[in-house]
Amino acid sequence: MAKSRVLVVGTGGIGTMSAYALEQGGLAEVTAVMRSNYDAAVNNGIDIDSVLWGQIKGWRPTAITKTVPDASQGEVAPFDYILVTTKNIPDVPPTVSDLIAPAVTPGKTAIVLSQNGINIEKPLITRFPKNPLISSVAYTGATETAHAKIYNDDPDCQKIGAFTNPQVPADIAAKAAKHYVHIYNPTGTLEVTYDADVAAVRWRKIAYNASFNPISSILRMDTPRMRMTEHVITDLILPIIAEIREIAYAAAGVTLPEDVVKKVLHQDPNDTAFKPSMCQDLEKGNLMEIENLVGEPLREGERVGVSAPTLRIVYGIMKALQVKVREDKGLWEARFQPDNPYE
Amino acid sequence: MAKSRVLVVGTGGIGTMSAYALEQGGLAEVTAVMRSNYDAAVNNGIDIDSVLWGQIKGWRPTAITKTVPDASQGEVAPFDYILVTTKNIPDVPPTVSDLIAPAVTPGKTAIVLSQNGINIEKPLITRFPKNPLISSVAYTGATETAHAKIYNDDPDCQKIGAFTNPQVPADIAAKAAKHYVHIYNPTGTLEVTYDADVAAVRWRKIAYNASFNPISSILRMDTPRMRMTEHVITDLILPIIAEIREIAYAAAGVTLPEDVVKKVLHQDPNDTAFKPSMCQDLEKGNLMEIENLVGEPLREGERVGVSAPTLRIVYGIMKALQVKVREDKGLWEARFQPDNPYE
Repeated sequence: MAKSRVLVVGTGGIGTMSAYALEQGGLAEVTAVMRSNYDAAVNNGIDIDSVLWGQIKGWRPTAITKTVPDASQGEVAPFDYILVTTKNIPDVPPTVSDLIAPAVTPGKTAIVLSQNGINIEKPLITRFPKNPLISSVAYTGATETAHAKIYNDDPDCQKIGAFTNPQVPADIAAKAAKHYVHIYNPTGTLEVTYDADVAAVRWRKIAYNASFNPISSILRMDTPRMRMTEHVITDLILPIIAEIREIAYAAAGVTLPEDVVKKVLHQDPNDTAFKPSMCQDLEKGNLMEIENLVGEPLREGERVGVSAPTLRIVYGIMKALQVKVREDKGLWEARFQPDNPYE
Repeated sequence: MAKSRVLVVGTGGIGTMSAYALEQGGLAEVTAVMRSNYDAAVNNGIDIDSVLWGQIKGWRPTAITKTVPDASQGEVAPFDYILVTTKNIPDVPPTVSDLIAPAVTPGKTAIVLSQNGINIEKPLITRFPKNPLISSVAYTGATETAHAKIYNDDPDCQKIGAFTNPQVPADIAAKAAKHYVHIYNPTGTLEVTYDADVAAVRWRKIAYNASFNPISSILRMDTPRMRMTEHVITDLILPIIAEIREIAYAAAGVTLPEDVVKKVLHQDPNDTAFKPSMCQDLEKGNLMEIENLVGEPLREGERVGVSAPTLRIVYGIMKALQVKVREDKGLWEARFQPDNPYE
């Protein structure tokens, strides 16, 4: 059986770890789209320092490209899978759909979204109505410490299942998801598993991502200090988790069990000043994944009549912090004027 | 008639402007407590660059002291008034009461609190039950640009009236307040006026101070940009103003008229990147006046059953930002530990 052709878009920590695992499994050949790290990878290969794979030096996937290849004109063979691990920031172009469109063969390519958040599949359903859409929720700690240098300090843990794409039969989508798990983890030694209940998996992760991520960003505070400052937990984190549980149930029929609260509070180490990714992004001046982690859960709540005051106010604050990031990047311009628009 | 003896505690912008005005009026002699700016004032006098008074060079009040004088042992003559213009931060010692206590002659000294916030008189009622307590709400733009150098770009505008102190007859308290206005503004040329409705004056200012101050601090954003980022106004500022209006009415019987909203939105200039004082404090690493501007209005709401979700969440955030300021000042210590207290 021919190897599956996988295009990996987004070769930061998790994208590179996935590319490596897929090729190690022997059932996939990976084309990696590399942008800022292209030269480093082509010239010297990729270095991976991993709790899982050990010290890898100078590794290269089957192919490296600088841009998303165009599979529509026969320049490259069609891809069986596109794995997307970029940050998902729909408020700033390009969208994920625009980014990957050239490489998507309609009716064939299965698109794996290894990204956080709720409703991230919605724009892809519209754009790629005949393609299986696959959800991967990763709890893998991996970061790019320099161009093409990856530090991976957690086991690779992913839960994978099919999103609903109405024009794709459910069994076809599930088969594509299961096959992806198979080529990723053929020997079953990784914690990369099939989980059909995509909604439950995603809402479970939102309980953390909609609480600790924005609150740590607003406070620019690590999570141990948030716990030491106890009122941050009681006044801000716990109310958001409660709101997410209510929304998950009302909007998606997902019951997040009581112990989710304790698990979310525990998720991070207590002995080092760990800051969640959104806070790291803000402090680095990077755009933040606000819409899919905070905005969409809030809108799901509004859709089904669940008031979520904490989430709503936190979302308002985060949107304004994003404006500042956009301004620093030249994507938003302040226009001072003598007259007050509210006059 | 002998001049009134006034002790001014807090000689930043407004304190110094007040000290100068009081001595200019010819009816008061001022003792100014100067701390960081003591040497500069003693050696070179105080420079004031004022829209109101012009260029003043090397001015000195009647007396300058480094600490609050002790009036209890006859070291100094009793004070008729103590004007307090320090920041009011009850969460970090010393309290205002502790600070001024040595200079307060029971039953004689009237204490003028030229500070923002709600319920700031409460601790003083307990501590100084026989002294008139006077409220000054100032809209005077004055800042200390260097030690003993004041820049004043707004007319001196203050509304002055008596707080209720149960053991002090209301007419005595009112008389003390009116006399203070008289010695401050004997010719009536300043916008420093008597207003008996202290609660209305204070809640009116809270509408700004509980909204723009904390939100600008959380966002580290100037007020024109907050208005440009329209959702900041609609999602954060307007809800807080609405909550304050509701609390003011329910807790203090104060009706803040509809046009307060427009006036608060207008209060700051639109053509320069002005940041409210709390935001300036945060960015300078100074402690912020959170309790009297945000915490007390919220607690007043809770007392009378007004839910104020925006104010509540914003208060939670501000308290945590204050923890960071306290940590930077060595007033709070992070204690990392292996075990999670929520386990």
